[in-house]
Amino acid sequence: MPIRLTTAEKEIVKTLAKIKKKSGSHSPSPAQLLGIKGISMKHDFCFLSNPHATELFLRYWKRDFKNAGTLRKLVELYPSQNLALAAKLQKLTGVSTPSLFVGNGATEVIQAVLHNFSRRKILVPVPTFSPYLEFAPDDVTTVMHQLRKEANFQLEPERFLEAIEREKPDTVVIVNPNNPDGGYMSPFKLRQLLQKLRHVGTVIIDESFIHFADKDARAVSGAARLVKTSPNLVVIKSLSKDFGIAGLRLGYGVMSEARVTALLKRGYLWNVSSFGEYFLNLLNNMEFMREYEKARLLAIRERDEFFTHLKTLRGLKVYPSKANMFLIELQNGSRAEDLTVALLARYGVYVRLCTDKVGLKGEFVRVASRRGSENRTLLTVLSELLP
Amino acid sequence: MPIRLTTAEKEIVKTLAKIKKKSGSHSPSPAQLLGIKGISMKHDFCFLSNPHATELFLRYWKRDFKNAGTLRKLVELYPSQNLALAAKLQKLTGVSTPSLFVGNGATEVIQAVLHNFSRRKILVPVPTFSPYLEFAPDDVTTVMHQLRKEANFQLEPERFLEAIEREKPDTVVIVNPNNPDGGYMSPFKLRQLLQKLRHVGTVIIDESFIHFADKDARAVSGAARLVKTSPNLVVIKSLSKDFGIAGLRLGYGVMSEARVTALLKRGYLWNVSSFGEYFLNLLNNMEFMREYEKARLLAIRERDEFFTHLKTLRGLKVYPSKANMFLIELQNGSRAEDLTVALLARYGVYVRLCTDKVGLKGEFVRVASRRGSENRTLLTVLSELLP
Repeated sequence: MPIRLTTAEKEIVKTLAKIKKKSGSHSPSPAQLLGIKGISMKHDFCFLSNPHATELFLRYWKRDFKNAGTLRKLVELYPSQNLALAAKLQKLTGVSTPSLFVGNGATEVIQAVLHNFSRRKILVPVPTFSPYLEFAPDDVTTVMHQLRKEANFQLEPERFLEAIEREKPDTVVIVNPNNPDGGYMSPFKLRQLLQKLRHVGTVIIDESFIHFADKDARAVSGAARLVKTSPNLVVIKSLSKDFGIAGLRLGYGVMSEARVTALLKRGYLWNVSSFGEYFLNLLNNMEFMREYEKARLLAIRERDEFFTHLKTLRGLKVYPSKANMFLIELQNGSRAEDLTVALLARYGVYVRLCTDKVGLKGEFVRVASRRGSENRTLLTVLSELLP
Repeated sequence: MPIRLTTAEKEIVKTLAKIKKKSGSHSPSPAQLLGIKGISMKHDFCFLSNPHATELFLRYWKRDFKNAGTLRKLVELYPSQNLALAAKLQKLTGVSTPSLFVGNGATEVIQAVLHNFSRRKILVPVPTFSPYLEFAPDDVTTVMHQLRKEANFQLEPERFLEAIEREKPDTVVIVNPNNPDGGYMSPFKLRQLLQKLRHVGTVIIDESFIHFADKDARAVSGAARLVKTSPNLVVIKSLSKDFGIAGLRLGYGVMSEARVTALLKRGYLWNVSSFGEYFLNLLNNMEFMREYEKARLLAIRERDEFFTHLKTLRGLKVYPSKANMFLIELQNGSRAEDLTVALLARYGVYVRLCTDKVGLKGEFVRVASRRGSENRTLLTVLSELLP
């Protein structure tokens, strides 16, 4: 039975649409929802990050900032310059500094790469993370490669190669795992595909969600090490999601030395705050990284458990995912908009309405995998709404 | 009598030179000096910021973060997007959002402006803040306009206009007050000069130190309001120096709506951290701003007192300054390098050696004005070293 909204809830639909207009292709932030009458948010399933990792970070923070002088230094003084910060990512990435570019969030890296290395045409599989469709320079064309719903939005190498053959882009983007569906290509298959992309000027592999892809720590080290032998590769990664620190703004790119040099010449000097630098230091703290590995595995376990139960719900289809999110398609005649507002108004649960996602036609919402207990709450609520 | 270094101190000169090589055109950070044998830094006169403002900020921070949930939100969640952050600068600047671009530090704004709006040639008075000489795109020429020592490095409008007439730049830079000398052009004179620059495509006015220029709060509101009627103006300002929060990375630019729109289209989406946003909120807190005004006036008073005494010292010339720094020229036959190392090794006092400053020939160091008590320490030490 489709969800029916009350008159008050229909008003919320209108208000949300207005707020959404101001947020571009991103969903309204929880702060933007605060003022809406009839809404009191309790669970944010719109937001993609590992809450256990956030807690770990805060534990270290509280211990390290007991000394007031430490905080003062971070606030008052300049952080280290870009090159010194890059050195702090060597251990995590297994890549040495000349190939590392540190960004104030992955979006800064995406912007820098598209603006400096894309010449004519960018091919982007859709649906995906919207900045790849929006950040291209004016004189560069963005062409979309539609991922097929029937293939669960997986990137199909043959079709992708055909599109490249046809469109002849100088830049292609592979988001692995992909956002919003969590579709994933294994390291083996990815390497096979990359072999066939050696003629493409720039191949961007965005691995922002790769820490959720596999329990095996080696498998999630990703494509960074391939850059040395394949200088056309650019591997981009956010640190916001897996480490739960979106507020700090941190991401990085692994690319050829020549590309890093070119970017640094353009003036990325002090682009990360002192608090971001404090986090980069933790990446070199063995004890922190040991505890992070536990937080990472816990998030994967909870995600898998969430999927097992989501699959059993009626009235929806859930797509298989190797990220910390699930794409859900409504199949009981409900509109995704109505589900979103019903969840928000009746249960205080915020999910990502996907009606604005380019390349995604139908009634879709995206839900994050949060803590196990929160996931169970969402399962209960969904089974009530979609009986 | 010139300063004579000991053998150990001469070694430090060499070590410093090596470290300096790695720091580009900026001075080595205190952290980089930590490892040098024979040095224990006590006072950082290299670093330009208002320590009273830092203390004010930390007082608010400690109060606001007593609730652990506040900190968690800042770490875990995304900060607001660029447009929402710009709104938080309206009160400080007296300018409305369509003309405001928020940067992750003034250096990001400088980079964005030079790369997007400079077409052929940039004219930069020197000596000045080095990014203006370094951040130009490859296909844009940077031409220097030498400020005359005999004129105390003041910008002389007639000479400047002649240079513009001769060089026909499409972009000119005016840093007011200037770094490293603190040379200042009054609002009245500046407006007169700008009248004559209406034919120049882009006139950048960098006002990062303007809060130190005048006790009158109206006088330090700067050129921001002129942008509305003169769309060729771009006013850039760091918030690091006056507010003492370099670690947060915050700066802004005031420019025509069309320019802000063009920059935002290039992808500056979440370029300020949540901690930066927390600071922007304080700018709209009347109590905080009232207390900041006191911290600002105190810094000016201490700077003026510092100047009165610096002028009386023998063996040096101090240039008049309206910023929180003084350019000092040695006149007793000492080398600036030797003074810097003697201060560091014998007293733990770090000053900015200016031998690498483009457009500054001679034996120069730059000293920050810090707290009154610290300034008095430096005065004592200098009178001992330059008897």
